[in-house]
Amino acid sequence: MNSLIISISTYSRHKQKESEYAMKKIALFPGSFDPFTKGHEDIVLRGLKIFDEIIIAIGYNSQKKRYFEIDEMVEKIKSCFSSYNNIKVDKYTELTATYANKHRAEYLLRGLRNTTDFEYENTIAMINKDLYDGLETVFLITSPKFAFISSTIIREVHSYGGDIRKYIPYTL
Amino acid sequence: MNSLIISISTYSRHKQKESEYAMKKIALFPGSFDPFTKGHEDIVLRGLKIFDEIIIAIGYNSQKKRYFEIDEMVEKIKSCFSSYNNIKVDKYTELTATYANKHRAEYLLRGLRNTTDFEYENTIAMINKDLYDGLETVFLITSPKFAFISSTIIREVHSYGGDIRKYIPYTL
Amino acid sequence: MNSLIISISTYSRHKQKESEYAMKKIALFPGSFDPFTKGHEDIVLRGLKIFDEIIIAIGYNSQKKRYFEIDEMVEKIKSCFSSYNNIKVDKYTELTATYANKHRAEYLLRGLRNTTDFEYENTIAMINKDLYDGLETVFLITSPKFAFISSTIIREVHSYGGDIRKYIPYTL
Amino acid sequence: MNSLIISISTYSRHKQKESEYAMKKIALFPGSFDPFTKGHEDIVLRGLKIFDEIIIAIGYNSQKKRYFEIDEMVEKIKSCFSSYNNIKVDKYTELTATYANKHRAEYLLRGLRNTTDFEYENTIAMINKDLYDGLETVFLITSPKFAFISSTIIREVHSYGGDIRKYIPYTL
Amino acid sequence: MNSLIISISTYSRHKQKESEYAMKKIALFPGSFDPFTKGHEDIVLRGLKIFDEIIIAIGYNSQKKRYFEIDEMVEKIKSCFSSYNNIKVDKYTELTATYANKHRAEYLLRGLRNTTDFEYENTIAMINKDLYDGLETVFLITSPKFAFISSTIIREVHSYGGDIRKYIPYTL
Amino acid sequence: MNSLIISISTYSRHKQKESEYAMKKIALFPGSFDPFTKGHEDIVLRGLKIFDEIIIAIGYNSQKKRYFEIDEMVEKIKSCFSSYNNIKVDKYTELTATYANKHRAEYLLRGLRNTTDFEYENTIAMINKDLYDGLETVFLITSPKFAFISSTIIREVHSYGGDIRKYIPYTL
Repeated sequence: MNSLIISISTYSRHKQKESEYAMKKIALFPGSFDPFTKGHEDIVLRGLKIFDEIIIAIGYNSQKKRYFEIDEMVEKIKSCFSSYNNIKVDKYTELTATYANKHRAEYLLRGLRNTTDFEYENTIAMINKDLYDGLETVFLITSPKFAFISSTIIREVHSYGGDIRKYIPYTL
Repeated sequence: MNSLIISISTYSRHKQKESEYAMKKIALFPGSFDPFTKGHEDIVLRGLKIFDEIIIAIGYNSQKKRYFEIDEMVEKIKSCFSSYNNIKVDKYTELTATYANKHRAEYLLRGLRNTTDFEYENTIAMINKDLYDGLETVFLITSPKFAFISSTIIREVHSYGGDIRKYIPYTL
Repeated sequence: MNSLIISISTYSRHKQKESEYAMKKIALFPGSFDPFTKGHEDIVLRGLKIFDEIIIAIGYNSQKKRYFEIDEMVEKIKSCFSSYNNIKVDKYTELTATYANKHRAEYLLRGLRNTTDFEYENTIAMINKDLYDGLETVFLITSPKFAFISSTIIREVHSYGGDIRKYIPYTL
Repeated sequence: MNSLIISISTYSRHKQKESEYAMKKIALFPGSFDPFTKGHEDIVLRGLKIFDEIIIAIGYNSQKKRYFEIDEMVEKIKSCFSSYNNIKVDKYTELTATYANKHRAEYLLRGLRNTTDFEYENTIAMINKDLYDGLETVFLITSPKFAFISSTIIREVHSYGGDIRKYIPYTL
Repeated sequence: MNSLIISISTYSRHKQKESEYAMKKIALFPGSFDPFTKGHEDIVLRGLKIFDEIIIAIGYNSQKKRYFEIDEMVEKIKSCFSSYNNIKVDKYTELTATYANKHRAEYLLRGLRNTTDFEYENTIAMINKDLYDGLETVFLITSPKFAFISSTIIREVHSYGGDIRKYIPYTL
Repeated sequence: MNSLIISISTYSRHKQKESEYAMKKIALFPGSFDPFTKGHEDIVLRGLKIFDEIIIAIGYNSQKKRYFEIDEMVEKIKSCFSSYNNIKVDKYTELTATYANKHRAEYLLRGLRNTTDFEYENTIAMINKDLYDGLETVFLITSPKFAFISSTIIREVHSYGGDIRKYIPYTL
């Protein structure tokens, strides 16, 4: 086999990977996840039926203090989905649209719990599409049994020593 | 009379008190009440038609600064209801469900002013029932004439020197 | 025993009954219940913790056609609560406030599922209080697992031959 | 070639088709579409980025009168998407979940315009998942420029002789 | 004086009237008003502070049956505002935008009672602006004491013989 | 001409100015405008069709940090409307009702984007009317293409280096 053939072969593997990317439906599930809840897990698992790959990414602002450490949370989320090779967990500190663009995610996956969520998400979805043309936000409605679980409430329950184990899909 | 009789008598008084408790419908009206408003008063007085006793309790977090001093507010609320022996006023710094449980309150009393309140209260009611099985949140819709009064707005009006007397049921 | 004594005795039994009424907390749970659902059952059973007696009453309009026969529905609802002697089932064709007044019910019991319900119920509650001074509407939020069940949807599912057994607390 | 081989060949073509079906993501876009609007078209075209095939199906009830003839509407919708071989147009008169199941559609595609839509769709999505386990409703938020277009309003404008051409993606 | 002068004079009076029209702010307050309520009256009277003239116009559809006779309702509304020469009462059976255009009304006046109203009115306002470029819908929020009064509820109360006098600004 | 006449003349000019004020419809468009957006501009320009003069006033609290400097923002807003002599731009640090009263503004102009806005604005409008009797809040619904633009989101986009030029009607 000569080098020409080798390089051609490399080239076609490269092409193949590109076209795979083009076909693979990658969704970004962005959030502050402080903490990640069973409601979030519900959305991710249902999202897997729609997308080929989901990137769970914790957006953070180095100047805002979190309740749960970001790196610990990344590890906890990874532990929930260790058996899925099409779920990735990451953190980012830039615009969600910019991060999605860099990672070839053409979809944002979001859960809706109620009308307050809807009004907020509506606004965010429009601005994201505006910032990165073609970025489509896809919504699932959170399952009723998880609809009352919010990160805010879990933080409050936890801060007063309440038991939050049934609201999170990992152990703290 | 010998001691046995005395102790039996004490025992039966004790039993009687327990059964009274069991029958008495005690509702907790929790809030930050910063400040307590005529809207809150409306809910408490209407709640008295439903419950045998109402505990108005100010939840606080020692690390969050209030606009109105908590102990002053407890006194002000007490002064509003001094003629009612079935209304108690207290403060607490634990989970609402924990406080309710300790004080044998099996009901939370809450007012609803609008859909934003509804979505928020819905979430809180579910988590409270989850934390303390059997804790039932009972809602009344705030009377229209008080529906626009919120503690947040009163603080803002007060901070700019506006007259808040008609929004609160006591004098400052 | 002479007649005077008899009449006194009758009088005091009458008085006693009146004062019982005065103390007994009777709530009316009005609706068209076409059909009565597990969501309705949830509200009634939770309402029993608050009220001494609940009257479930089907409001009807002789000129509007129902999907489920009213008398059959009354029987079905009765069958659900046959073990409760403090739950009554009835039908009426007058203003809800008028019916409540006649039956000494000083409370209306209603379930709230979402913000659309809230806006509608808010309006109805105000008019009912206006029509019968002192008629207080007490709201419980429907349990999440029943929140998506509406009579309208059940009728539609049933009309296309779908299985509605898990949405209703009786057999058809 | 003997019959055995033929039957094996037939079998594997059958298997191939099955596995194709298994992998192909088919979404049902159900509605009464009386008429189909540019808002509906917006959802379908954006849905194509998510799903491999979309079935637009007009649910009808033979006893309810439509404003626009159902067969004419099927033709009009077909004319909009004639260049797409992965968009099908149909009509049905059974439960949406039943129809989806028959056509191997594991997703319902729906647009959300506002909070009233959200509350309604939330209820429908839950019942559909309940009726056909695994049927997932996927929501897109209608683009702002189409959010005010509803079939109801178009019918009203049309009935008074108003010009509806800019609200529909075909000519009448 | 010769005819020329007369005609010039007529012409300038005509011009003057035109320019008056151009400057006069005329708002249309459209509705089905079945019946017109104190809530409607509240919006009209407050609208007078904003506009120079208000046309209250009952939109009707000859094929839909009303509860209150349209001509009687026109008379009743006229009787409420007989002392105002800048309030006109009319009926129409065409698109609201068409009627507004014909009567040089560049504003629609509408009341908002709650979020359900908001979602509905939002949609209508956009379509009206679309149908008649420049038609601006101006909203006032209904006063709390009238917010629970709807024509639908008044019809229902009336149909069961309830007293609706306090909800309407005229006698029936 | 003697001084008497002069003073009479001055007096009548004064009277004339007063009556002009009385007739001139001045609306206050209050907000924090951090920053002022194209959505705000949309409301101001449409408001000009209703009112004779609009005062855009930035309410501020010396203790709350802004993202965009208040004096710079006043200048930027002025630059947008430099060709309109009936639009004024100002800042204030008192109750909105007090500021409106001082500047003879009998109207507050506000935009509504969605139901969350509605619930908030409803409350504010009622309190403002309560604080300054006769202060009427007039609402326009934000044009769909601007409805997703909020100052909060623009700040966030800007803080991450995103391009906000298309959301603001001036250059930064």
